[in-house]
Amino acid sequence: MNQRLFFSLIAASLVLAAFAHYFTDHAIFQFVTAALAVVVLAAWLGKSTESVAHYAGDRIGGFLNATFGNAAELIISFFLVRDGLFEMVKASITGAIIGNMLLVLGLSVLLGGLKYKEQKFNAKLAGHNASLMILAIAALFIPAVFLRELPVVKIESLSIVIAILLIIAYVLWLIFSMVTHSDFLSDIDPQESEPLWSKGISILMLALSTLFVAIVSEWLVHGVEYISHTFGWSDLFVGAFVIAIIGNAAEHSAAVLLAVKGRIGGAVEIAIGSSLQIALFVAPTLVLVSLLIGKPMDFVFTPFELAAIAASILITISITRDGATNWFEGVLLLTVYIILGTAFFFV
Amino acid sequence: MNQRLFFSLIAASLVLAAFAHYFTDHAIFQFVTAALAVVVLAAWLGKSTESVAHYAGDRIGGFLNATFGNAAELIISFFLVRDGLFEMVKASITGAIIGNMLLVLGLSVLLGGLKYKEQKFNAKLAGHNASLMILAIAALFIPAVFLRELPVVKIESLSIVIAILLIIAYVLWLIFSMVTHSDFLSDIDPQESEPLWSKGISILMLALSTLFVAIVSEWLVHGVEYISHTFGWSDLFVGAFVIAIIGNAAEHSAAVLLAVKGRIGGAVEIAIGSSLQIALFVAPTLVLVSLLIGKPMDFVFTPFELAAIAASILITISITRDGATNWFEGVLLLTVYIILGTAFFFV
Amino acid sequence: MNQRLFFSLIAASLVLAAFAHYFTDHAIFQFVTAALAVVVLAAWLGKSTESVAHYAGDRIGGFLNATFGNAAELIISFFLVRDGLFEMVKASITGAIIGNMLLVLGLSVLLGGLKYKEQKFNAKLAGHNASLMILAIAALFIPAVFLRELPVVKIESLSIVIAILLIIAYVLWLIFSMVTHSDFLSDIDPQESEPLWSKGISILMLALSTLFVAIVSEWLVHGVEYISHTFGWSDLFVGAFVIAIIGNAAEHSAAVLLAVKGRIGGAVEIAIGSSLQIALFVAPTLVLVSLLIGKPMDFVFTPFELAAIAASILITISITRDGATNWFEGVLLLTVYIILGTAFFFV
Repeated sequence: MNQRLFFSLIAASLVLAAFAHYFTDHAIFQFVTAALAVVVLAAWLGKSTESVAHYAGDRIGGFLNATFGNAAELIISFFLVRDGLFEMVKASITGAIIGNMLLVLGLSVLLGGLKYKEQKFNAKLAGHNASLMILAIAALFIPAVFLRELPVVKIESLSIVIAILLIIAYVLWLIFSMVTHSDFLSDIDPQESEPLWSKGISILMLALSTLFVAIVSEWLVHGVEYISHTFGWSDLFVGAFVIAIIGNAAEHSAAVLLAVKGRIGGAVEIAIGSSLQIALFVAPTLVLVSLLIGKPMDFVFTPFELAAIAASILITISITRDGATNWFEGVLLLTVYIILGTAFFFV
Repeated sequence: MNQRLFFSLIAASLVLAAFAHYFTDHAIFQFVTAALAVVVLAAWLGKSTESVAHYAGDRIGGFLNATFGNAAELIISFFLVRDGLFEMVKASITGAIIGNMLLVLGLSVLLGGLKYKEQKFNAKLAGHNASLMILAIAALFIPAVFLRELPVVKIESLSIVIAILLIIAYVLWLIFSMVTHSDFLSDIDPQESEPLWSKGISILMLALSTLFVAIVSEWLVHGVEYISHTFGWSDLFVGAFVIAIIGNAAEHSAAVLLAVKGRIGGAVEIAIGSSLQIALFVAPTLVLVSLLIGKPMDFVFTPFELAAIAASILITISITRDGATNWFEGVLLLTVYIILGTAFFFV
Repeated sequence: MNQRLFFSLIAASLVLAAFAHYFTDHAIFQFVTAALAVVVLAAWLGKSTESVAHYAGDRIGGFLNATFGNAAELIISFFLVRDGLFEMVKASITGAIIGNMLLVLGLSVLLGGLKYKEQKFNAKLAGHNASLMILAIAALFIPAVFLRELPVVKIESLSIVIAILLIIAYVLWLIFSMVTHSDFLSDIDPQESEPLWSKGISILMLALSTLFVAIVSEWLVHGVEYISHTFGWSDLFVGAFVIAIIGNAAEHSAAVLLAVKGRIGGAVEIAIGSSLQIALFVAPTLVLVSLLIGKPMDFVFTPFELAAIAASILITISITRDGATNWFEGVLLLTVYIILGTAFFFV
């Protein structure tokens, strides 16, 4: 996209959201403008991260991309944790995982599949992703199974241990996929494109975009609380389907675009990589951060969320296992997504 | 089989069942004769469907076969729904799914495996079946997890949404496997055999056999209610192991015969295809039909049924994944079937 | 290892354990010495079994190895059953399964992977193991799901049926893997080594080592009861993590050694084979034996144990499916093991 147009869009959406927040009382208007601004700003944050990563070199850049790829999601969740909206945080983690695996991957596979009869990608990568996803399932189910009957203090201790183990596993995964076994996993071609900005500007951009995402995220969280009361939507539905979609919109469109261009491997890597990052990095980080700010959040998800995550992971593993996709597999993913969305809506 | 013999058998079993129903009071005799007649008539219905499908051309014929392949099961279940025997309907759906996956596939793989050291089939087909099976698991588990605590009206709404989504997914699956990707999935050789009857006779046969299956199914349902009271068998056991076996006997023998002839691919396609048809087409159709006749049945299965279906699907996926079978895999399938049968019997 | 050193070690550990048991009152000292003696004696029992198996010929030897491979575990569990410590027995079965799949396989894969970039093994074997593991999951979950609400007498009956079915399946598996399909499954090179002892001595060794394992196991069980009270550890934790590790230490080190020597196939076969043997042979045998000695134990595991076993099996299947391993897969297995250990500790 044209740079001038891009920055005009950023400025316009920021001004609109600020106007709505400071000068009007119309909650739905405030929510919609904040949501739009977050989507645009998250795209900006993504581009800035990529640009800084470019100058940081392959390895550190890869780490940066992998760690800040879900920065917007992380920032929004931080404000939810601060406000004690733990149910909504966990729902938005759930929603981000299933949204990436079912909605984004489903749309990518379906739209790509309508154009190409069969799209192939690196099956070895798919195998590793499957193992990581099962670690994620285990890490989320075990506390839920074990901790229902435990006193609060034990739930907290176990939550912390699991959070630390997951972050270690995630860091080792980055080392594995970028250092020791980088040669036989990646499927995205090395980025041939020149970065948009100079090194100094890139860092400034990253700082600015993060700041603005943080500011507007706070507005969004206020709006969300109001919206869920007004429409009578449950925290579960709002977190899993409204916040998760807003926080991940930028990445979602990137994955779908790659699939339509015939690069399904890249789309799979973004969709599943982002899910894993949420489960193995964002979620445990939030648990640890919640302790630091004195609002301890545990790692115990509801049976609804666990069922949704397990269903998503199982069907995603089944579909990506063979390293080939077709349109009907997209239909399957989207069907499960719509079933889950309906179920969350009714709860 | 000789046609004359076949029709003599149909006539004899019909007359016997009618005699038992109208002129005797012996419930067990009525039940046994009705069961026998249903088995024979279901075979006739199957042959008539195939014959009509032959004249309808490849595609529409394929749809016909796929849609009416479980017509007998559907008709019997309809009468159970009409009588409000929802527990037995769901149990018979469960029984048909696990019976196809464990009993039929198990016998086919075991008997085929005693003759051939290893039998191979199209692994791509197995992969697609696995994904559809996981959709089936998700569709059956999600309402059970979410709906236990919901008011009845929400359970009904969600049941309808899921039923419609599953039927759409099933229709798209037929389009996928018969239209857009027919070339790389099928494993059954094109049927070289001539149809038994002319076009007009075939349609008449289909109408007649459907009518007789309907009549005798109603007798059978009456008998079943009596039998389960007399022997103290639970609805769960009767539905899952008595009705399911009677309703699917014709197909079952067809699959086993193919396996013994070395065509394990055909046996797998019948056994798993039939399971999927029950889960993704028969079950949701019954939910929608139950609404139309004013006896709304929901989509919530018991934990027993869900555990049985999940166990069957997991072991079937594991065994068919590699596109090769041997006798021991048949033993595994049958062992799980016997364990489940014993468990259902004791409940 | 040098034979003289080996027997000195056996003698020393036996004398020490006997001294602690008969002449001191210090429970922790008694427990530690008994534990050490069991580890050493189990290694002796293992070597004796191998040696007898050598003289018995390939097939019967294979059966012997497969059946008495977990003799130490079986003997310890027998004493636990006799003392009515059913919770601890089931926990130790759970611990042996997850210890083999996660700790042993994890260490083998990690240490092997630090030396070799990728280690390959027979993927066909992995596929068969996966199917057997799913049978094990089904066999352990089905009673738990079905039996919670049943009267005790039905739980016992179903437990017996399942135990017998599993033993039959296990025997058929041995026939399959050693008789009918021995050619395309095994991954361990035929043992080229000469046996250590003559035929007569080997049998004597087997008898003696079994006797001593039995004697010291009883001391160990006494110590364990005391230890768990003193430290306030739950039966679950002691069974699953203390007893399971002591009872399987000898095998564990054998598997890890093979992996480091580059023979990951052998390590996988030991680790997974041992798990399957526990689930499909040791556990059902204990159920049947418990009846014979008038202390009937059922087959109903706790949700914690089932969750732990399911998590272990799923991640093991995912990692071994492709017939290749690397260091990060070891990290994944060990991470799940540590998470489970922490969770069991807190319960």
